[in-house]
Amino acid sequence: MNIRMILKILGFLLVIEAACMLPCLLVSLIYKEHDFIAFAITIAVLLTAGVSLYSIRAKNTNLYSRDGVAIVSMGWIIISLSGSLPFILSGAIPSFADAFFECVSGFTTTGSSILREIESLPKGILFWRNFTNWLGGMGVLVLTLAILPRAGATTFQIMKAESPGPNPDKLVPRMAQTAQILYSIYLGMTVVLIVLLIIAGMPVYDSLVHAFGAAGTGGFSSRNLSVGAYNNIFAEVIITVFMFLFGVNFTLYYYALKGNIKSLFKDEEFRFYAGIVIISIILITVNLTGPVYGSIGESLRHASFQVSSVITTTGYSTYDFNLWPTFSKAILVLLMFIGASAGSTGGGIKCIRVLVLLKTVRREMKKVLHPRSVNTVQVSGRNLDDGVMSGVTSYFYAFFLVFVVSILLISLDGKDLITTFTSVVATISNIGPGLGSVGPMGNFAEFSDFSKFVLSFTMLFGRLEIFPMMLLFTPSFWRRANI
Amino acid sequence: MNIRMILKILGFLLVIEAACMLPCLLVSLIYKEHDFIAFAITIAVLLTAGVSLYSIRAKNTNLYSRDGVAIVSMGWIIISLSGSLPFILSGAIPSFADAFFECVSGFTTTGSSILREIESLPKGILFWRNFTNWLGGMGVLVLTLAILPRAGATTFQIMKAESPGPNPDKLVPRMAQTAQILYSIYLGMTVVLIVLLIIAGMPVYDSLVHAFGAAGTGGFSSRNLSVGAYNNIFAEVIITVFMFLFGVNFTLYYYALKGNIKSLFKDEEFRFYAGIVIISIILITVNLTGPVYGSIGESLRHASFQVSSVITTTGYSTYDFNLWPTFSKAILVLLMFIGASAGSTGGGIKCIRVLVLLKTVRREMKKVLHPRSVNTVQVSGRNLDDGVMSGVTSYFYAFFLVFVVSILLISLDGKDLITTFTSVVATISNIGPGLGSVGPMGNFAEFSDFSKFVLSFTMLFGRLEIFPMMLLFTPSFWRRANI
Repeated sequence: MNIRMILKILGFLLVIEAACMLPCLLVSLIYKEHDFIAFAITIAVLLTAGVSLYSIRAKNTNLYSRDGVAIVSMGWIIISLSGSLPFILSGAIPSFADAFFECVSGFTTTGSSILREIESLPKGILFWRNFTNWLGGMGVLVLTLAILPRAGATTFQIMKAESPGPNPDKLVPRMAQTAQILYSIYLGMTVVLIVLLIIAGMPVYDSLVHAFGAAGTGGFSSRNLSVGAYNNIFAEVIITVFMFLFGVNFTLYYYALKGNIKSLFKDEEFRFYAGIVIISIILITVNLTGPVYGSIGESLRHASFQVSSVITTTGYSTYDFNLWPTFSKAILVLLMFIGASAGSTGGGIKCIRVLVLLKTVRREMKKVLHPRSVNTVQVSGRNLDDGVMSGVTSYFYAFFLVFVVSILLISLDGKDLITTFTSVVATISNIGPGLGSVGPMGNFAEFSDFSKFVLSFTMLFGRLEIFPMMLLFTPSFWRRANI
Repeated sequence: MNIRMILKILGFLLVIEAACMLPCLLVSLIYKEHDFIAFAITIAVLLTAGVSLYSIRAKNTNLYSRDGVAIVSMGWIIISLSGSLPFILSGAIPSFADAFFECVSGFTTTGSSILREIESLPKGILFWRNFTNWLGGMGVLVLTLAILPRAGATTFQIMKAESPGPNPDKLVPRMAQTAQILYSIYLGMTVVLIVLLIIAGMPVYDSLVHAFGAAGTGGFSSRNLSVGAYNNIFAEVIITVFMFLFGVNFTLYYYALKGNIKSLFKDEEFRFYAGIVIISIILITVNLTGPVYGSIGESLRHASFQVSSVITTTGYSTYDFNLWPTFSKAILVLLMFIGASAGSTGGGIKCIRVLVLLKTVRREMKKVLHPRSVNTVQVSGRNLDDGVMSGVTSYFYAFFLVFVVSILLISLDGKDLITTFTSVVATISNIGPGLGSVGPMGNFAEFSDFSKFVLSFTMLFGRLEIFPMMLLFTPSFWRRANI
């Protein structure tokens, strides 16, 4: 393992995190709140540590698979640790376990919270809380790669370990440039969203905060009632559309911007994702009209918002959907697992993997009927090679494994079985709320510190798609460390 | 598809089912209950239909993969339909949906019930109910193959479609002989169990009925309080040990009988299965001693009974484990999913598949660390070929798919989410009880007829490991039917 190079990049990551806290410092100064001191101290600490690490000299600048994994998994732990400093120092979230949980939940765009009351928190702190949603959405290391001077071609390993989905696309030969392109599109879309929300009549601060939450598909809000608090139909429609858009593979936007709009509709994952969203909205609208809402229009409004929010694992709500009929709730729960597209900011299993799952089942059925035929699985007209297929399988298996271990650890807390199970489901899939005491109207405050740490790691396992974090806990991973 | 040959074998299956009802008829005569008429009518109907079908002449006696699937999937539906006749005709379970559900639950060794009260039912009916557990455990078609005159080598396809686990072993070149060996071992072990239970002081009738339920790992009981009703520690220990034994791959018993006892301990699935059982018993015993039971001995007694009952998906209970601490309950829920060994009478995912899952995850981790190395997955020292690996994957995928569709269909019933989810989990894994209104102290009576049919098919999907039933619902399966 190339320890020097790893430390160097992690140092740069800390500098970037410090830079990202500057806007928050600014917000606290604008609102004349005392939390600016917390940001000032944190920024100073991060800059000192970051610059010292970055100044380490590394003769060998090559990064291998193992190094990429180390950078990503340790990077996410380090930014979560340091990112929770403002919460602790400002006194907004005094307990370390709570602050770490909240920060991990932000960066991983899970949106689970230990806060019972949000609106009394200082504006700067809430701004940082939601900014972590935005940073985590596209990935903190993708951002690092986009900015890092002389990021070599070997940084592909980092990108691969952080990007959601089975196989990240290299848009251009140089990885740093790919990262820049992705972040530019992301930034551009976020700016458009902010402007539209302001036009729709949302206050500027609230527009910024909710745009961050929606773009990162994290779902943190500055209001206890989430987006429902505004009762603003325009803002709801805008957020509905944008949550959906942030759940699309960003690679497709790049091709669309290059003039190849057809590629969007040719992409099988996009068609699958859009198809599920449309079908779910229709089914839920039909199910809600009558028993819950008087008109089709109102049902459609709430159904589309909730479907868009849930499939992208954002977690915003306009209505307590616990009060909906079981059929609608069951659809929502299934959408949580499916999740958004690979290469988007959304969480969950990802549409592409579900698509591979469906096609594998079909292939197996054909195999029974025609034992001697050779069937390959194709997506968007291309054969999936064995590597991708076995990667998808391993992901499902590892997901299940972490799920089981986490449940056993959380069950030691003695909460009821529903709370125990769904707290793990909600965090590993980066969804946010579960059922029982961690339902949409509840929170994670009542867990023990031990459980909060376990769930924090469950979120990290989920966001990094299991393997990078799993390797970190493997002794053989640490052998052959060269300094 | 070789329709004539399929009908011929299904006819033979009906004759066997009629023969299996004779002991039940005898029981009703001994207890002088009116239900003997129901059995007499059913036997007459089955014999008439069975003999007519069996007398069909088939020139071509070859059976292909497709035919094996058709025989198994249709066979299970037909015996469940005809097997529910005694319930309906005797008036014990007057509704068709209820009787079909109960019969499917018996044959698939699920053990879910729509009965609110068991003890008032006629003795002959309860005997048949538990005898379905026994028949379904080793497989009704394996029994057919064992008895069928001139069963050719091509009947391997039938065996393959019915046997639980990824890859059935051919013990001897002739499949019919393999089936005979397996059934002889099964019968022998059941007889030993019956004798031991009688010695332990259980009434003869109760010993028979509970031996059927334990051997088939179905878990039907003739008492409302299950095995706990007897409060007989000897019977409990005997049943604990035998439930464990019936969860072992029967192939290993064959080799052990041939003198190769080592093969039992060399078998990686057996070691895994036994290991999980032992570890779970220890963990639960520690967890229970103090808060629930006063002594280690009592904790051990209940822990081992429940672990053995749950991992084999039998479902017998001596104590309402809903009152146990969450950690113990979480272990039990996980054991339900894992299930027993391939080639045993138990349900669930099966230990071998979980083992493949774990090894695949380990292989993937190695792949990240050493991208160029070639790693194969080995079980019991042998490389698993791609066919087995992709079969395991497809099983998991198809399981998940049926799970999702069933949940959507059941959710139309409007029961709460927990009841909806766990009713599907309990039936597809052939476990029996779920949580909520279908918990250990509840039952499935309150579902609509539509849901009862859906859950009946979920049980069949689970027992036949998804694909045979799934193919039955595929239009392309029915093409090329030659008469």
